[in-house]
Amino acid sequence: MWPHTKLTELLGIKYPIIQAGMAGGSTTPELVAAVSNAGGLGTLGAGYMAPEQMRKAIADIRERTDQPFGVNLFVPGAYEEDMQVIFQMQEYLKGIETRLGIQSTSNRKPGIYAESFAEQLSVILEENVPVFSFTFGIPDAAAIEALHSNQTKVIGTATTVKEALLLAERGVDAIVAQGSEAGGHRGTFLQSFESSLVGTMALVPQIADRVRLPVIASGGIMDGRGIVASLALGAAGVQMGTAFLSSFESGAHSKYKERILTSSDDSTVITRAFSGKPARGIKNEFITMMDTYGKKIPHYPIQNALTKEMRKAAAGQENTEYMSLWAGQAASLSQLASVEELMSRLIRGVTDTLHSIQE
Amino acid sequence: MWPHTKLTELLGIKYPIIQAGMAGGSTTPELVAAVSNAGGLGTLGAGYMAPEQMRKAIADIRERTDQPFGVNLFVPGAYEEDMQVIFQMQEYLKGIETRLGIQSTSNRKPGIYAESFAEQLSVILEENVPVFSFTFGIPDAAAIEALHSNQTKVIGTATTVKEALLLAERGVDAIVAQGSEAGGHRGTFLQSFESSLVGTMALVPQIADRVRLPVIASGGIMDGRGIVASLALGAAGVQMGTAFLSSFESGAHSKYKERILTSSDDSTVITRAFSGKPARGIKNEFITMMDTYGKKIPHYPIQNALTKEMRKAAAGQENTEYMSLWAGQAASLSQLASVEELMSRLIRGVTDTLHSIQE
Repeated sequence: MWPHTKLTELLGIKYPIIQAGMAGGSTTPELVAAVSNAGGLGTLGAGYMAPEQMRKAIADIRERTDQPFGVNLFVPGAYEEDMQVIFQMQEYLKGIETRLGIQSTSNRKPGIYAESFAEQLSVILEENVPVFSFTFGIPDAAAIEALHSNQTKVIGTATTVKEALLLAERGVDAIVAQGSEAGGHRGTFLQSFESSLVGTMALVPQIADRVRLPVIASGGIMDGRGIVASLALGAAGVQMGTAFLSSFESGAHSKYKERILTSSDDSTVITRAFSGKPARGIKNEFITMMDTYGKKIPHYPIQNALTKEMRKAAAGQENTEYMSLWAGQAASLSQLASVEELMSRLIRGVTDTLHSIQE
Repeated sequence: MWPHTKLTELLGIKYPIIQAGMAGGSTTPELVAAVSNAGGLGTLGAGYMAPEQMRKAIADIRERTDQPFGVNLFVPGAYEEDMQVIFQMQEYLKGIETRLGIQSTSNRKPGIYAESFAEQLSVILEENVPVFSFTFGIPDAAAIEALHSNQTKVIGTATTVKEALLLAERGVDAIVAQGSEAGGHRGTFLQSFESSLVGTMALVPQIADRVRLPVIASGGIMDGRGIVASLALGAAGVQMGTAFLSSFESGAHSKYKERILTSSDDSTVITRAFSGKPARGIKNEFITMMDTYGKKIPHYPIQNALTKEMRKAAAGQENTEYMSLWAGQAASLSQLASVEELMSRLIRGVTDTLHSIQE
């Protein structure tokens, strides 16, 4: 099974290791290309990118690798725009921005809350991206058909068996099983996120038993031990996000990398503070403030747009207390290294682990 | 490593599979002895048992097996006894008991809230129990010393790296790493349970890297796949609870077994409803009622004592909506079988899984 799995075959890659398409700037073209060049699948996290930025990043990746790579997008859902709730949050954020000594922009309504998914998808199609992965829902049948007639492989994200079954029915080629350990946004789209917080150890075999597609384990996987564990549970490969955040090629802020490298197993919480959608990150001051905010937090993507300037300014000030520090529950196993070094460590780790459990 | 691990050596067992010491009547002497006779370690869940009941059960186990077995107890902690909170809960429960048509006992103060840990521990010592495991804290140094001079192996339960380090410092012989997937009570004793909900995939390697003792993975492990995954993550063995609940030898109510066998990955929640302490079980009417109760739920073990008669009566009526249905997040993988059949399926599953991930 190692390194040849249903997933390596499907995606045309050497090792069944996918670098997660984390949005927000960490998945630089350098990172994506380095993972693909090392035999995994690099993924551009394009959820927050404008179409032209996507086009530029994809061209940049193609200059750096001739291997398959992926692009990840957020499938939009309906959301409520309550002006009273938005106004209250803007007032609150203005207070923080003033305290941080930054020019407040929170009294302005953002131009747009999120990029157009239709336009982003057009880029994927026009650029013939080898692999398209998505979270937060399922694109419509026409989109999946168009991707397939373009030879693009389509990967959906499930946090429960029900979501996996629906994704399979809609014709995806592989399914990421996102366990509760995973850093960043919960992919949940059918039920409440609380009832969809299933640990990787429990989620993977239950999904693997119910779908015939390759299952990609994610959540808490940081090294060769986690990769072998995932394959044992019935996965055909893994998706790893946090593990790549602290690589040299990652665009994550150096202070963010520092927080990851000094974290412990109990450092993270799931919060709606930064984007309006539940996501796992290292607990900081802004999360604590939102926990006791007492009023409604605007829905995604509104809250994401509202906190954007604050996060950007905090990053400029190297103040991690007001940045989103997405990370999984095993972030403490992170290492500062080049992607090449990290990938060879993973592959060596798999061999060592396989050896250690034999006899 | 398979079947020989640091754990099989420590406990003198053939396979590194521990049946969890679940309190509440499911771990009958038949179950415990059957697991030990099949080469695992059966464990009596004696948390709620009176000393005399324990003595009888231990004798019964010894009549059925000459193999090592374990007994599990709850380490008591300080708790607040707020009579107003207790009175309100008694009034509320009285309403439920009336609706269920059972003789209400909730207007009486329970004789005792919990059995005496000191007396329970004396039985462990006097009976020379081969393995003693515990949750909810750590027994004092004198107790651990007495157990050790009795040749009893001592196993503690950790839900975070911090708890594991403290257990190691206090001299336990092995540590159960209880992932967030696990059914039943959270073993958490240092922080809030919310900040200690770490998935098994993330928890096991982080603990294994920090302690030299054998680590026993638990939470979401139901078959050979989960066992191999645990060994890959660095565990020396596994503890499985839910998987044994639906065995023929288990004392769990037949309707409870039915709920486990028909559950799905999203069936469980963590609740304080039944005992006052957070525990994972299949969501039912009483949990929903406690979610909207609006007043304080008495602390453990008070709430456990208060709901005892209701749970007992509901069981008599085969009404699972008012029984505690402890189960892990992979309960749907359960099978109705004898322990002998289940154990040989686990062992075959390990071999099959090891074979499937090699090549």
